Amino acid sequence: MSKLEQLEQPALTDDELAAVDAYWRAANYLSVGQIYLLDNPLLTEPLRPEHIKPRLLGHWGTTPGLNFCYAHLNRAIKALDLDMMFVTGPGHGGPALLANSWLEGSYSQAYPAVARDGKGMRTLFRQFSFPGGVPSHVAPEVPGSIHEGGELGYSLAHAYGAAFDNPDLIVACVVGDGEAETGPLATSWHANKFCDPVGDGAVLPILHLNGYKIANPTVLARIPRDELDALLRGYGHKPYYVEGHDPEAMHQAMAEVVDAAIADIRAIQRQARDGGPSRRPRWPMVVLRTPKGWTGPGSVDGVPVEGTWRSHQVPLSGVRDNPDHLRQLEEWLRSYRPGELFDGDGAPVARLGELVPDGQRRMGANPHANGGLLLRDLELPDFRDYAVAVDQPGVTSSEPTRVLGRFLRDVLRDNADTANFRLFGPDETASNRLDAVYEVTGKAWQSPIVDTDENLSAHGRVVEVLSEHVCQGWLEGYLLTGRHGLLSCYEAFVHIVDSMFNQHAKWLKVSRGLPWRRPVASLNYLLTSHVWRQDHNGFSHQDPGFIDHVVNKKADIIRVYLPPDTNTLLSVGDHVLRSKNYVNVIVAGKNDSPNWLSVDEAVLHCARGAGIWDWAGTEAEGEEPDVVLGCAGDAPTLEVLAAASLLRRHLPSLRVRVVNVVDLMRLQSATEHPHGMTDREYDTLFTADRPVIFAYHGYPWLIHRLTYRRNGHDNLHVRGYKEEGTTTTPFDMLVLNDMDRFQLVTDVIDRVPGLGRRAAGVRQSMQDNRTRHRYWVRQHGEDLPEVRDWEWSDGRTG
Amino acid sequence: MSKLEQLEQPALTDDELAAVDAYWRAANYLSVGQIYLLDNPLLTEPLRPEHIKPRLLGHWGTTPGLNFCYAHLNRAIKALDLDMMFVTGPGHGGPALLANSWLEGSYSQAYPAVARDGKGMRTLFRQFSFPGGVPSHVAPEVPGSIHEGGELGYSLAHAYGAAFDNPDLIVACVVGDGEAETGPLATSWHANKFCDPVGDGAVLPILHLNGYKIANPTVLARIPRDELDALLRGYGHKPYYVEGHDPEAMHQAMAEVVDAAIADIRAIQRQARDGGPSRRPRWPMVVLRTPKGWTGPGSVDGVPVEGTWRSHQVPLSGVRDNPDHLRQLEEWLRSYRPGELFDGDGAPVARLGELVPDGQRRMGANPHANGGLLLRDLELPDFRDYAVAVDQPGVTSSEPTRVLGRFLRDVLRDNADTANFRLFGPDETASNRLDAVYEVTGKAWQSPIVDTDENLSAHGRVVEVLSEHVCQGWLEGYLLTGRHGLLSCYEAFVHIVDSMFNQHAKWLKVSRGLPWRRPVASLNYLLTSHVWRQDHNGFSHQDPGFIDHVVNKKADIIRVYLPPDTNTLLSVGDHVLRSKNYVNVIVAGKNDSPNWLSVDEAVLHCARGAGIWDWAGTEAEGEEPDVVLGCAGDAPTLEVLAAASLLRRHLPSLRVRVVNVVDLMRLQSATEHPHGMTDREYDTLFTADRPVIFAYHGYPWLIHRLTYRRNGHDNLHVRGYKEEGTTTTPFDMLVLNDMDRFQLVTDVIDRVPGLGRRAAGVRQSMQDNRTRHRYWVRQHGEDLPEVRDWEWSDGRTG
Repeated sequence: MSKLEQLEQPALTDDELAAVDAYWRAANYLSVGQIYLLDNPLLTEPLRPEHIKPRLLGHWGTTPGLNFCYAHLNRAIKALDLDMMFVTGPGHGGPALLANSWLEGSYSQAYPAVARDGKGMRTLFRQFSFPGGVPSHVAPEVPGSIHEGGELGYSLAHAYGAAFDNPDLIVACVVGDGEAETGPLATSWHANKFCDPVGDGAVLPILHLNGYKIANPTVLARIPRDELDALLRGYGHKPYYVEGHDPEAMHQAMAEVVDAAIADIRAIQRQARDGGPSRRPRWPMVVLRTPKGWTGPGSVDGVPVEGTWRSHQVPLSGVRDNPDHLRQLEEWLRSYRPGELFDGDGAPVARLGELVPDGQRRMGANPHANGGLLLRDLELPDFRDYAVAVDQPGVTSSEPTRVLGRFLRDVLRDNADTANFRLFGPDETASNRLDAVYEVTGKAWQSPIVDTDENLSAHGRVVEVLSEHVCQGWLEGYLLTGRHGLLSCYEAFVHIVDSMFNQHAKWLKVSRGLPWRRPVASLNYLLTSHVWRQDHNGFSHQDPGFIDHVVNKKADIIRVYLPPDTNTLLSVGDHVLRSKNYVNVIVAGKNDSPNWLSVDEAVLHCARGAGIWDWAGTEAEGEEPDVVLGCAGDAPTLEVLAAASLLRRHLPSLRVRVVNVVDLMRLQSATEHPHGMTDREYDTLFTADRPVIFAYHGYPWLIHRLTYRRNGHDNLHVRGYKEEGTTTTPFDMLVLNDMDRFQLVTDVIDRVPGLGRRAAGVRQSMQDNRTRHRYWVRQHGEDLPEVRDWEWSDGRTG
Repeated sequence: MSKLEQLEQPALTDDELAAVDAYWRAANYLSVGQIYLLDNPLLTEPLRPEHIKPRLLGHWGTTPGLNFCYAHLNRAIKALDLDMMFVTGPGHGGPALLANSWLEGSYSQAYPAVARDGKGMRTLFRQFSFPGGVPSHVAPEVPGSIHEGGELGYSLAHAYGAAFDNPDLIVACVVGDGEAETGPLATSWHANKFCDPVGDGAVLPILHLNGYKIANPTVLARIPRDELDALLRGYGHKPYYVEGHDPEAMHQAMAEVVDAAIADIRAIQRQARDGGPSRRPRWPMVVLRTPKGWTGPGSVDGVPVEGTWRSHQVPLSGVRDNPDHLRQLEEWLRSYRPGELFDGDGAPVARLGELVPDGQRRMGANPHANGGLLLRDLELPDFRDYAVAVDQPGVTSSEPTRVLGRFLRDVLRDNADTANFRLFGPDETASNRLDAVYEVTGKAWQSPIVDTDENLSAHGRVVEVLSEHVCQGWLEGYLLTGRHGLLSCYEAFVHIVDSMFNQHAKWLKVSRGLPWRRPVASLNYLLTSHVWRQDHNGFSHQDPGFIDHVVNKKADIIRVYLPPDTNTLLSVGDHVLRSKNYVNVIVAGKNDSPNWLSVDEAVLHCARGAGIWDWAGTEAEGEEPDVVLGCAGDAPTLEVLAAASLLRRHLPSLRVRVVNVVDLMRLQSATEHPHGMTDREYDTLFTADRPVIFAYHGYPWLIHRLTYRRNGHDNLHVRGYKEEGTTTTPFDMLVLNDMDRFQLVTDVIDRVPGLGRRAAGVRQSMQDNRTRHRYWVRQHGEDLPEVRDWEWSDGRTG
């Protein structure tokens, strides 16, 4: 269509234009009201200082643009009967989304006390950024939200996660130009290359260039138009531009562009679903360039505000004390002509209803955005069927994650029809030995596939990109829209998403307090390729601290599992896939390692979370042991059992108890964590006064932190990773961090009183072993043969 | 130049071509040798299994491309006398950079035991990825490295950090196409918009598309050429392409492209430095598309390897046991014709020397890459000159970071000539109230500047982009090349760089053990806008856990400061800017808050790190107090002093001691941290047996973790942030987390025995105050007047 024809045939009739503009004005009015007003919501009397909030906290800058998008998407939803969600990237879009949710009625549905009338409007205004009220972000409290935006950068990844396996859904995602500078957002543009036009829905990115972040112009708003266009096409998009500030022209342009973009999406999907040639689609996107703080005060105290960074927060800051500001605020509010928008009771006039979709088509009421409504339990095969046979502890061995991979393969297979389970990973699924999954599905890939590629598929249900941020963002979006998933990651590099984990844990905490939000599936991490087995990667790949990070969050939300072998990993894996509203962290090895428990023993042990392995100890019936060897994690468990074996051989009269902990939070007090043991339970395992030598997978002080109130704490001595060791052998890593069997035996001898001269000799020989090992490994590049080939059965018979 | 002319005038003469190819072959030979050989480095005898390492650990895939780049950059350095550094983005480039450093002699200079002869070559091979040897990344052990690459995504940010304020330097930065998928890297491309062609050096990105990461093709290698070109132009670059696999053609193409890119850089810089029009430059970059594992085995066991993901690690894995693999390895090694490259003694032949730059021009010997060599102490103004006057504690107030901003302003001013100090931040410098710095410099900005902008400047020394990753990467690059800096950040969002912090801390730990690496300036974090003052941002902006994360790293490296007021912040600020080889974390408020200490008191207090504030307590001379109130952090200090004031008024006979901790690591044992107190010192402050109520800035259990071995630990009760509270008032945040003054008084009463009936009444009134506050704040949106206006002086006279 030529420019002339466009002028002749505007996208909107005069009536439609008036409707969309009225809706936009109403949302803007409600947004400004939230930022400023304690009372007098309908301006039924002249504005007075006592109508104004004592503390003005909120963000106007991004709001009118968000309202503009929402109004136009509503129009399209109604016109085209779209199933659409709205993801708000900009950090402080709260006023806009609250305004729209209230206007369309989804707010009052979730919060009946905030009705669509003058009283409800007063509450809506008053509660915003007010103590006991609602935050200024699009937090869990906002109906229709799956993305808070308080921490920037994850909107597009969340949007794609929501679109996966929802073929009829369109996720409109407003990307702020501040947010667009973050790393996670910058790489999320490439998520379009993993979105299947057949089985997935579509994401419609709307890059909102309002030009400024807190105090600076934005990078993307200040590059030339041709450079921006090249960038977006380089990301694989077909950009449509809506640029300006005149409302009428902008409404016409936006309506036209939204229609064109939706038509593109439908054409792409139709072609792909009809079996057309599988060229990777160039998905449409919108570039919306508006003034920041559009329609707000042009200037304040003689300084330009609209269209500058000064409109980021509260454009008029002195309203309570400065009569000029108060007058300007009243003019600003009245510029939206509230009398035309709300009736005498404060309800939106019928005209505004023309822009409100029906029922669940309202973006604030779309069930995808309250995923628990749609959540279906997974069909889970019986994990016992995948178990390794264990007749005797420590005789056979297996690769725990490889076995889990077979279970996950069948989870993928058994839920293929419902398409509600996916595996995510940063190019590590095979490295983490979960590759059995490729027997039933491929890795999502829309780009060309060549002969030498393996397991790529346009419809694959394993999603891999070399960005932990995007993987986590996808998974979060997938979970929050009512599906299930698991992210496997190298243990050290999961710290890349520390901050994303924080936000998700906080989201879950708040959601749990909202009765209308239904529980979603847990966020499951499988951390493998862990600190003790970075033989070839060295120091930079060694960091077990994610657990420490995780346990700072609310105990209600957090679960940490350290299965010591294959069958316990299977049991834990099954458990986490059934759970809801948690973050589950599983740390497990991928390397071939001993099987300790039969599957029945594993189930029992995991259910208890911690227990005495009596087959490994030498206690006498009815007596307290001389020493307790505790362990959590696969490498520590092996060393503790080896130490127990050495003690049996060399100090046969010593009474040793071995306790293994699989559910780490059992160590905390029952008053602090739902899984915590009572002191009595703790003492039953660890005794109240005997020395406890505890070998732990991660930083040793975490165990002290979890147990510092326990009776026996003063007798607890913990070994763990202390940032030593680099490229070396597995056993050398243990020696360098003083967690090897020889050191554990030494620790026992040093802490159990009265062991006598024989023990002194054993102690010396243990330390000699350490020295001999250090020499050997440097000469041969391999561990001492006796530690490499050691088996528990030897220990037992030793 | 037309294609025909290019053919007529190849960039390299036959001799030059032969030289660069020989150098490349030598580097490739040395790389393969490192991955495989224990012995027989020069293949003086047929290869036998015992010459092969028992564990094959290394990564071939990226190596030949890196060697190719290094050879060609060497050629350009020599031809054009360039001052150039090499940043290796791909994760596992160790073999390549070790090979080149050994070839050019910089390795033997750093490690005389690894000479440039056959014996040295044997050691070079043997030590690689071998216990006690060197890692497979470009770790600190590698001369010329400032970037390990083990965790992907930071190469470009490091490169730009190195280029800042080094106008004669060119930083060649190879970006792997795997790494290019990470968020930090994806947004780092925009760093070119902050690089000043006048005062900064240049970065020459070389995007190495070898097509594969661990097990998948890469995103950028599989998008069409026009899309890639659009993307790179969209990033603001002028891309040059070198694509193919035939060595001769590739050498010619690469030589031509490198020459053209250097010519572009020089033209851009000349034009800008001659005062030409200040249009933002379109910096050149190189796209190098080669097979992965180029020149390695084409196929192994009938499966294609070269040019596929299978060449990522060790292409021939069964060499010790499989005679075919052994034969193939020998053929592969001999394909580089080592006889032409090394003399009988194993030294590189003279011909290879033609490609080796002189002295410090060698990239392995460039002093910028061993920044401590160039480090000059900052000129620091006397921080006492910026102090606020404090005649009496708690009567006046100030904004701590605003005052620090004045000090930082003059640090920028006084070091403007040396240009070796910068401030970095994610769009928060003004929000964090450091904006005095704009009196002497601007914010770096190369894009157009409009009238309403403030403080932007093409030559600004404050660098802001809305990416914590890029800010941290810039600062790391800046520090590692011998300069100083500080990153200010919202406390909650510094978790975004948790993993980058990990890598830097690990880098420092390893560097400290390398005598040839000279100490660099510390990495300084100023965390403000902290957990207790997120009034308008709410729950998502509340996270004090970075401290917990940091203290997991080696005690030698880590320092954490919690200055309670303005003058202590100044003292700490001065201290950290003088320090070397640490990571310093400062947590300080930006809000107006009481001044407690005069500057002389502050200096003494900070030097001690923790101390009794006797003016705040009520102890009798020579007697132990009844209770100790400990505090660390500004908000906790205020509450503890308010609690002390309430106790004085209501329970005047109670003997209270107030202890403030500014240097958090003082709490740890002297055996665990260099700053740790002895038990005797600890008991002198906290007593061995009296109740201690400790109010802490962050998660309370950290204090337990740091003190669990202390005598009085069982009497220690810690209050802190426990993930409660959202958008609310400052005092309400304290109440919600049970750290308010009323609760602290309650805690005292609950823990000091024998206080009697009066205390019970006080306790009740304290709890009533909490209830009254909760009601008040919800009604009025403001704190109770008496907690808002409270001053220590009132308390004192109360």
